[in-house]
This record gives sequence, structure tokens and C-alpha cells, in this order.
Amino acid sequence: MGRELREEDLPDLARGAALLGTGGGGDPYLGRMLVQQEYRRGRTVELIDPEEIAGDALVIPTAGMGAPTVRIEKLPRGTEAALALRTLERHLGRRADATMPIECGGSNSMVPLLVGAQLGLPVVDADGMGRAFPELQMLTFGVYGIHGSPMAFSGAHDEHGIIDTGTDNLRLERLARGVTVQLGGTANIAHYSMTGADVRRTAIRNTLTLALRVGRCLRESRECHRDPFQALTALFKETSYGHGAPVFTGRIVDVERRTVGGFARGRALIRAFADESTLELSFQNEHLLARVDGRVRVMVPDLITVLNAETAEPITTEALRFGQRVTIYAIAAPPIMRTPEALAVFGPRAFGFDLDFQPVEELA
Amino acid sequence: MGRELREEDLPDLARGAALLGTGGGGDPYLGRMLVQQEYRRGRTVELIDPEEIAGDALVIPTAGMGAPTVRIEKLPRGTEAALALRTLERHLGRRADATMPIECGGSNSMVPLLVGAQLGLPVVDADGMGRAFPELQMLTFGVYGIHGSPMAFSGAHDEHGIIDTGTDNLRLERLARGVTVQLGGTANIAHYSMTGADVRRTAIRNTLTLALRVGRCLRESRECHRDPFQALTALFKETSYGHGAPVFTGRIVDVERRTVGGFARGRALIRAFADESTLELSFQNEHLLARVDGRVRVMVPDLITVLNAETAEPITTEALRFGQRVTIYAIAAPPIMRTPEALAVFGPRAFGFDLDFQPVEELA
Repeated sequence: MGRELREEDLPDLARGAALLGTGGGGDPYLGRMLVQQEYRRGRTVELIDPEEIAGDALVIPTAGMGAPTVRIEKLPRGTEAALALRTLERHLGRRADATMPIECGGSNSMVPLLVGAQLGLPVVDADGMGRAFPELQMLTFGVYGIHGSPMAFSGAHDEHGIIDTGTDNLRLERLARGVTVQLGGTANIAHYSMTGADVRRTAIRNTLTLALRVGRCLRESRECHRDPFQALTALFKETSYGHGAPVFTGRIVDVERRTVGGFARGRALIRAFADESTLELSFQNEHLLARVDGRVRVMVPDLITVLNAETAEPITTEALRFGQRVTIYAIAAPPIMRTPEALAVFGPRAFGFDLDFQPVEELA
Repeated sequence: MGRELREEDLPDLARGAALLGTGGGGDPYLGRMLVQQEYRRGRTVELIDPEEIAGDALVIPTAGMGAPTVRIEKLPRGTEAALALRTLERHLGRRADATMPIECGGSNSMVPLLVGAQLGLPVVDADGMGRAFPELQMLTFGVYGIHGSPMAFSGAHDEHGIIDTGTDNLRLERLARGVTVQLGGTANIAHYSMTGADVRRTAIRNTLTLALRVGRCLRESRECHRDPFQALTALFKETSYGHGAPVFTGRIVDVERRTVGGFARGRALIRAFADESTLELSFQNEHLLARVDGRVRVMVPDLITVLNAETAEPITTEALRFGQRVTIYAIAAPPIMRTPEALAVFGPRAFGFDLDFQPVEELA
């Protein structure tokens, strides 16, 4: 009932996921290589629309966890995420009918594709972040009542296990973060298991397809010598996100970045080409806040992406470098991510900013 | 088939366990209070000799984990250890026939008594350390082929889970330590599940009874105005440990102690009353090495205890204070702990000391 993802779609999907990753989620390059390897072994990925999945089907989302700065240095074996899913299946005493991304951004767009290809499971075209977020409780799944527990984890040496913190997803994040650090800074996880009906109620829909469309849009703009930023803006207007627009263009003049407690934290300064104004970008794995000369212009959960100023190629937080010419491109989060209950979990205050959320369309 | 532990035995057992804890394992006072509470609710503890347990019985050892410096400040609810055992039972798909100490020293002598009383399980009179050790791989169980995986853990907020690192007990220690730190510095665990036949092959036998005898010896010496050190020496001569003797007497003149990575680490200096000689004591939760004027006098796994110089009351590492008058009393480890395979796991080199093990009897 699903549709097969073509191998030639993978580069577009990876590029689009890097953009939706808002700097985090890890570069999808490695994940894409692993999925392509499965295609070359004769396996394929079947995408399934949330509308099509049975209401009582068991969906087990899968993802990687850890600082992107570590994930590009410590290469995966490729079997870790499937082990996490099998560990949770064993614990639940039930086989999964499908897997699904936890976040559609960055490398985590690829992890469920890999698991789906390896285990012959369809992948639900939806996720719980509509972008990337740094922490496990920052999911629409949790906002709308699905528990992150029990969670399965796995490491590169076949370490695996279960963590259960009942209804407390924040406590789950802390425990899982401790495990991830001990596993060497990266882990794979399977959790927020739910029914097909739960997916329809709590997930952000068609975000894998969105990543594919975004990536295709960037590639075709380049091939046809069109302005990629205009093309992106036209594209987002047709989606549930509704709004996308460039915010600032300039040169990176300073990057501060530390790997602390399992996260890549820091800030970057971007000086305008046109005048003396400066944009300050704050990140915790993902870009969270963009201020121009002290005035907030975009705030989480709206999406802040750093794109190459000419090609609109997305740049992840770990790849930010002095001298890069970049355009900050902002995208409105979809309505399901802007409700009061959602903002309580992943709005500006959840990241320690003493700010009430204001939509990017109003701040512009 | 076992014998009932009397409530009035608990203070003796706790005092003896504090001595066998060699400074670590946590003060048994709190654990004893929790066990006494169970007696006052009409529950009792049944001790069972390793000789008496069925060869195919399932024994699940239970313990607390974490820095003793934290364990005396963060009080337990009392239900955590039973939750860890139940979590492992569920994972194994089988009910335990008995529990057992992982270490007979310190508060970990009390944890299985509490679990046994609460769940109506007999407690095997044996353990895997014959004392206390700081890390999970430092067990005769592991030395003689029992795996620490799968391990169950639990926290004070009903967090619980499973960790499985296959045959790698050192990796298990690291992962579990990370979880313990995230749980606030203390956790409860259930692991090294084994059969009754395994207990007879890999455990140090009758160490709960030994703790009880040591505690009774100290109390009776005080009540009868006998020299407690002579009484201890006579007692250990009758056991599998074979040898116990005072090594040094003096006043504590310096204590360095930090809580690092989930451990209480440090050293203490003790100046002799009689002359200018100084004993330097190194510890990681437990006392590991005693040097007099630079010459090693006792080394792990032989037991180094710090006792009040008058009453022989044991003093834990976290209770060491400037000015205390103490006697360092050393006890030979039993033969099962001095084999080459045992010394590879918990001999001096396992703690970073560049020393070959020499028995305390020879160093004296």
C-alpha cells in the first residue's frame, strides 16, 4: 500500500533533511551512504502515508542520539538502529508493523530508512519534530500524550538495553543522555512506540516527502540557474509550514562551539555584506535563536537554517566556519508545533531564553 | 530449609559488614533501619547456606550502586532494589528463587536482606566480593565465568531498565556508572543472575554469617572489656580468610577526598603515636593500599580496615576526619580471591597501582 522510495531520490532527501535539520540532526551524508548500500544489496525502502497505516498497527520510531560533532567522527557500523528496534520489540513482546523518523532533520531522516530496508518494514512518512531538536522530550508525540518510555538503546559494540521512566519524558532524556555519553557520545534508540491512530493524532505528516521536495527544489534550482531562495519560498507556501523567507545575508566572523554534556553548544556571529549589522546565532545541536543587532528575528520552534549564500546548500552547526558566506533562511513551524502545549515543551523558554514565542512572520 | 535471621542480629551484622566494607559499600546504618522496619511489619529474612540451595534454582543478586558520599545524603525510598529484581525477572521471563549480596561489605550487605524480606525470598549466605569493591566487574562471579549482563537498574523515582553488554563486564560497569550518575549518584541493581550450582562454584561462602560474627565479636569485646583486636584476630583465624592483624596505630593528620565520576576518591595520612612514621591510605570508595613511610604494607584485594583505636568500631571513607585516633587492621583475602584470574580483575594493577600482589602475611 506504500510507495517505494527510489535510490535516486536519496541525495535529494538527504539534502532536504539537512536543511530541515536547522543545523543539527547530523549531516545525512553518512546515513545516505548506508541506505544506498542496502539498495545495492537489493533491498528497498517503502514509504507509507500516515493516512494509509492501519489504526491498530504498531509503529516503532528509530533514531540516532548524540552530539553531531561526535557522530561525524565515530562512524556507525550500520546495524545499531535495527538492534534498538529489535530490543524494544522483545521488551514489548510484539513485532513492529512499521518504523518512523523521530526527527525528519539531518541524519535522523536516514536512520528509519536504513532500519526499514534492513528489516523489511515500511517507513511512515511523518515525524515528531518537523525539523531537528536536541532533546528526546521535544517531540509532538510527547506533547500530545505518547510516552517516550519504554525506550530501547544500542551501541556500536552490541550493547543494548531498556530505559523506563514512566510518564516522565524529561527524566528519560537525562538518563538516555548519560547512556549516550558512556557509549562514546552516540547511541541509537527506538521509542515512542504507538499505534497508527496515534501517528495520525500526534505526528507531523509527510515530512520525509517534504525533505525530498526541499532537496529536489535546491538541486533543480541549481541545474536551471534559478534563485534557490525564491524557489524555497514558493515551496514552503504550499506546505503546512506555510512561510519561508531569507532573514539575513553575510559572512561568518566568529564561531564559538563546545561539546558539552553530549551536546554541541555555541554561537556564531554573521556580519552583513550591505552594512555593519550583525546577526547572532545561538545553537544547541540545532539553531535556536537569531538576533540582528540585539533584536530577535527568529526563535525556536520556527526553523533557522544557515544556507550557502549562493547555492542555498545547508550548513550544519559543526560545519560553520569563519569566512563562510551564508544566508539565514527562516521557516515557520507548522501549527501543530505552535500550540501552547507544544511551546511549553520546545518553545524559547524550554531552551533557557527568557522570551515568549513570536512567529517569524510577525517578527519580520 | 534456611534459617531465620533474628531482628536482634541486625546491628551486629551491620557493624561486621561495615568492617568488611573496608571503608566502602556505604554505612549500613540506613539499610539496617529499612530492614528493621520490615521486621516490625511482621516480615523476616531467611538465610540459606550455599550448600542447601537447589542446583537449578535461579539466584538474582541485588545491590546498591554509587558513591557512598552521595548515598548518605540522598536517602532511599526502600523499594528501589525490589524494583530492580522484578525488572530483571520480567526480562528473563522467570521468577527468582532467592537473592544474594553482590558485596557483603557496607550497606550492600543490607540490600538483599531488604529485598528478601519485602518479596519473601530467601537470601543466600554468600557474595561475590568477600568485602566491598568499587566496580561491577570486580566480582568472583565474573572471574569464574558468570556474566553481569543482563543487568537491571532502578532509581528513586521508579525509573528502571535493562543494560546488556554481552560478555563484557567492564563495559557494563561504565554504562551502569553513567546511568547511576544520571539517577543522582545512586542506583539499585540486580544482575549476575545464576543457578544454585553457579553460586557454589563462584561465590565467597558464608560472608553474611561472617559479618554477623565480626559484629558480634566487636560488641562482646566492648561489653566484656576485652581487647577487640585480639578477638578479631582469633576470629579470622577460624575462617577462610585465615589471617587478620593490626598494622598501624595513630592519628589522622590529613584527608583528601573528592567525589569524581561517581566515586569517592582520595587518600588519608595517619601519623603514628609512637614515633614519626606515617601511613598513607589510598582509596576509591574502598581502601586499596596502605604504605608506611613509602613501603607497601597491605594491598588490594587484601582487606584494609580503619577502626577506632579504642573500640575497633569501623570508620568508612566518607567518615574519615582529621584528628581521629585509628588502628589500621588488615585481613587476608580468602584463596578464591587470590588466584591469578582473580588478581587480574581486582588486584593492585586493576586500580592503577604498578605493583604485583603480595599477601599481607608476607609483607608484615
